[in-house]
Amino acid sequence: MRAVVMRKNKLIVDDIPVPTPGPGEVLVKTLACGICGTDLHALRFAQTLGGGLDRSGGLYGMDPNRDVVMGHEFCAEVVDYGVGTRKRFKLGTRVCSVPVLKRKESGNIGYSNEHPGGFGEMMRLSESLLVEVPDDLPPEVAALTEPMAVGYHAVAKARLERCDVSLVIGCGPVGLSVIAALKLKGSTPIVAADLSPRRRELALEMGADMVIDPRENSPYEPVTSAQRPQIGNVVANLGSFLAGDFPIKSDIKFLIKSFHRSFGSARFAGRPAVIFECAGVPGVIDEIMFRAPRNAKIVVVGLCMERDHIYPWYGINKQLSLQFVLGYSEDEFATTLRNIRKGKLRVQPLITGKVGVEGVAKAFEDLRSPEHHAKILVEPWRN
Amino acid sequence: MRAVVMRKNKLIVDDIPVPTPGPGEVLVKTLACGICGTDLHALRFAQTLGGGLDRSGGLYGMDPNRDVVMGHEFCAEVVDYGVGTRKRFKLGTRVCSVPVLKRKESGNIGYSNEHPGGFGEMMRLSESLLVEVPDDLPPEVAALTEPMAVGYHAVAKARLERCDVSLVIGCGPVGLSVIAALKLKGSTPIVAADLSPRRRELALEMGADMVIDPRENSPYEPVTSAQRPQIGNVVANLGSFLAGDFPIKSDIKFLIKSFHRSFGSARFAGRPAVIFECAGVPGVIDEIMFRAPRNAKIVVVGLCMERDHIYPWYGINKQLSLQFVLGYSEDEFATTLRNIRKGKLRVQPLITGKVGVEGVAKAFEDLRSPEHHAKILVEPWRN
Repeated sequence: MRAVVMRKNKLIVDDIPVPTPGPGEVLVKTLACGICGTDLHALRFAQTLGGGLDRSGGLYGMDPNRDVVMGHEFCAEVVDYGVGTRKRFKLGTRVCSVPVLKRKESGNIGYSNEHPGGFGEMMRLSESLLVEVPDDLPPEVAALTEPMAVGYHAVAKARLERCDVSLVIGCGPVGLSVIAALKLKGSTPIVAADLSPRRRELALEMGADMVIDPRENSPYEPVTSAQRPQIGNVVANLGSFLAGDFPIKSDIKFLIKSFHRSFGSARFAGRPAVIFECAGVPGVIDEIMFRAPRNAKIVVVGLCMERDHIYPWYGINKQLSLQFVLGYSEDEFATTLRNIRKGKLRVQPLITGKVGVEGVAKAFEDLRSPEHHAKILVEPWRN
Repeated sequence: MRAVVMRKNKLIVDDIPVPTPGPGEVLVKTLACGICGTDLHALRFAQTLGGGLDRSGGLYGMDPNRDVVMGHEFCAEVVDYGVGTRKRFKLGTRVCSVPVLKRKESGNIGYSNEHPGGFGEMMRLSESLLVEVPDDLPPEVAALTEPMAVGYHAVAKARLERCDVSLVIGCGPVGLSVIAALKLKGSTPIVAADLSPRRRELALEMGADMVIDPRENSPYEPVTSAQRPQIGNVVANLGSFLAGDFPIKSDIKFLIKSFHRSFGSARFAGRPAVIFECAGVPGVIDEIMFRAPRNAKIVVVGLCMERDHIYPWYGINKQLSLQFVLGYSEDEFATTLRNIRKGKLRVQPLITGKVGVEGVAKAFEDLRSPEHHAKILVEPWRN
C-alpha cells in the first residue's frame, strides 16, 4: 500500500506492506486524516530529541531511526476483521477511533514504528475503541473529532466556574479547538489572541467574542479589567466598539454582554481568569505568568517540546496555577463526535486544504505559515 | 530605639527613631521575632534584583538603596494607641498580627522602607489586624504563628482529597510548617525528603510518617508505589521496616497504616499525589516534574527568586498541575494561632536559638547551614 513514511527526518512516499489485524483488531481503509501540529513537532524533533525527551524515553517511545507512518486524526472504513473480534460493524462502516492500539507493547498509532498511522492507505485499529460515524457526516469532518476532543478535554480540565473569563493565547488548530469547546460550554466572554489576521478571523468563526492582535493591544488587559470591573471599563469598551478598534462578531450583542458582565462580575471580583496557552513555543508560559492577573488559572495545551524558562516568583506572588493537559478520554472523544454530528461544534471553517500522499511533504511546509492554512487533510486514496 | 538595619546589603545595629502610630494604628514593643528564609533571600537579592524582580517592580516594592528593618514573624506588646483607634486591648496585652500595615501606600512591615519590622524594639501595627495572644503562650511560640500559617495556607490551597499521598520536598522551616499542617489535617501518609539528617529528624517530630534522604532513596518512589499499590509493595515495606531501612516514627502503627492504605488506595488508583515544593532553589520544580507520577498536583511553597527552567513536555505528558502559593488570609493566621494555643500544632521543636539585635547578623549566617538551626528568634530587648 502507499504511505507517507517519515524516514531520517524526511517525508517520503513509499510502498509498504498492508498491516495485518491482530486479535481483537480491525483492518480499515483510511478515508481522511488531518495533519496535526504534533506531526510537525515530531518531524522537527524526532532526531534532535530536544525538550528533555532523551530523559523521558524519547518521543512517544518511538525510534526516530526507523520508519514511521504518522497520522492520528482519522476517519476510516472497516475492511476486514482479525481473529477474536465481535464484528460489531458491517464491512464498509465508517469509523473513528482514539489513536491508540490496545496492545501492551504498542504506543500510539501514527507514532509507533510498528503500526502505520493515517498517512497511509490502510491501518489496523482496536475493535473495542471504534466509534461509528453517522452516514451523513463527511469523512473529512469526522476526522476532526480528534483535534476537537483536545480542546474539549482542555476545557473540562480547566474546571471553569460560571463567571470565569477565558483568554486563549494562540489560535492555531489547538487554540481554535479550545475556543469551540468554550463556546459549546457557553462560557463567555472568550477573548482570543494571535498575531495572524487569518487566525483571528477563524477564532471569531469558531466562537470567540473578541480577538486581539498582541502587537496592538495586550491580550491580558480585558482579563484584568474583567476581574476588576468598573464603569470606566464599560465606557472604554463602548468607545472601542464605536471606534471599531476590535473586530467584534456581533457588536450590539457583545456590548450588552459586556455591560452585563462588567456590572455582574463585580459580585465575583477576585475570581480567577482562565488563560489557555495554545502556542506551544518557549517563552509563552513565562509571558503569561508575568502578565496574568492574580489567582489566574493557566491551562497549558500547547505542546512545547523544548526546554523553557519561568520565574517562579511571578507564580508565587500572584498565586497562579498551571494545569498541563494532554489528549482526552474515550468518552470525551465519543462525545466530541456526537457534538460535531449535532452541529454543536462547527469544524468546517478549519478545513483549509486536502492533499493526497504526494502532497503531504509540501502540506507540512505550508502549515508553518499561519496565514494560509488551519487544517489540511490527507486523503491517501486521492490521486 | 535599637534595631537591626539592612543597609547596603549588610545587617547593622543602629539607633533609629521610634515609629509614630498613625490613625487606626498601635505602637507595640517587639517581644520576639523569627528570622525567615525570606529575610535571607531579601538580604541576598535586594541588590541584585534577580528572578525577574526588576520586571515586577522590585522586591516587595522596597527600595534596596534605603534602610530597611526586616522581621515579620513577631509577637509584641501593646504600648500606645494612635488617633482613631478603638483601644480594643489594655496596654500590655500581647498580640500578633499579619505583617501588613493597612495603609494604601505601604507594603509589608519588615519589607518597607517606611515601617520598621520586628528586628527593632518597637513597631507600628494596624489595630484592626491585631490578634490577642493568650497569657499562657510564650511570646517566642506565638511569634511562630506567621511561619506556621504559611504551611496551613499551602495545605488549604492543595485541596487534599481523602486518599492523597503527600510528599514534602525540603524540610526547612517552610517544609516543616507544611508537614505540621498536613498532620493537623489528618492527612496520611506524609513522606518528607531532605539532605540534612537534622532536618529529617525535625520532620519526624513535626509529624512526618516517613523521611527520606534523597541520596539514598528516591523521594518519589513511595508516592509512585502508593499510587499503584500492590501486595509486593506492602511486603517490600515490611521488609524495609524490619531491616530498619527507614526511620519510622511508630513502626507498628505505620505498618498497619501502610497495609491499610496499600490495599485501601487500590480503590483510588489514579488519584494524584500531592508534592509540596519547599526547597525554593532553581531546578527543583523541574526535578519534581520529571519524577512525579501521572496527574500529580505540585504545590510550590518554596520561594525561588531566580530564573528557573522547566520542560513543559513532562507536565503535558503526565497532566501535572502546579499551584503556586503565598502567605495566608487573616482568618488562616488567626486559626493558626488558635491551633498553636490548643497544642494542635507543635512548634517548640522548631525553636533552635534566640539572639538579641547584636546576634542577628551571625544568626543569618548560621541559618545557612541546615544542621544546626531551624528557627532563630530575635528578642530585640535582650542584652
